[in-house]
Amino acid sequence: MKRTVWGLLVLALAFGAGSLLAARRASLDPKAGPEAAVRAILDAQQSAWNEGKVDVFLEGYWKSDGLTFSGSQGITRGFAGVQERYRRSYPDRQAMGKLDFTGLEVRVLNPDAALVLGHWHLTREKGDIGGVFSLVFQRFPEDWRIIHDHTSVVPGS
Amino acid sequence: MKRTVWGLLVLALAFGAGSLLAARRASLDPKAGPEAAVRAILDAQQSAWNEGKVDVFLEGYWKSDGLTFSGSQGITRGFAGVQERYRRSYPDRQAMGKLDFTGLEVRVLNPDAALVLGHWHLTREKGDIGGVFSLVFQRFPEDWRIIHDHTSVVPGS
Repeated sequence: MKRTVWGLLVLALAFGAGSLLAARRASLDPKAGPEAAVRAILDAQQSAWNEGKVDVFLEGYWKSDGLTFSGSQGITRGFAGVQERYRRSYPDRQAMGKLDFTGLEVRVLNPDAALVLGHWHLTREKGDIGGVFSLVFQRFPEDWRIIHDHTSVVPGS
Repeated sequence: MKRTVWGLLVLALAFGAGSLLAARRASLDPKAGPEAAVRAILDAQQSAWNEGKVDVFLEGYWKSDGLTFSGSQGITRGFAGVQERYRRSYPDRQAMGKLDFTGLEVRVLNPDAALVLGHWHLTREKGDIGGVFSLVFQRFPEDWRIIHDHTSVVPGS
């Protein structure tokens, strides 16, 4: 019996650590508007990245073949494709560096869709890099998710 | 009297030439869905560009301070800013080259908003250039307009 309780506790802790994004979102008032909801997700993504947790960072994206990511490599399709792109581009903590999202602008298109503009910056030993992004968020039954990401580099930013 | 009729004719012709986009759109069934409407605008933009008419090309954008354009220079704001950016980046026909939009994907977000992904390519004597774009269109009383454009270069595309 005691062993079962411990087992459940360990399971609960493991689950909690694995879905940081869900935990952070749960603390948000469910009646919060689109702007607060998408800001919470971006905030959680930034924290996850800076803890080296790419998979938790990726929870902000729509887990679907319909997800798209436009950038210097063209258009990457599907959640698996985007995941692969991140893993290839950022193989370790050194490549990931410290992420900062700044100047976020949330433009609500309707109660279920929002456009978010912003700047990103990676502070890295091997050289900083940064630029701008445009995200289209859509509300799903479970939560808001990024359905399209266009990220590009701005030299010297 | 005769002079007035001629005056009106000249005015009508001048107006027609100055708003190619409007003329092209007028030929579209007003009940056409969002997809047909935004495709007609992009088609008209491509034609205007290839006729060297940057101002007609720009009619596809929302004429507002709220318009945004993200790219290699960061975020450009307002219709006047975007106009200035195009004029500076493409001062003559040689810099403009021949524009091709390909692989258009229209994702209707709701009856009044759409996300459009695509590829752009400029065939130019001084060297081709191309990449990807993400456009957010919004329906206004007069027509659909681009409210945000994120355009970036894909090397070798």
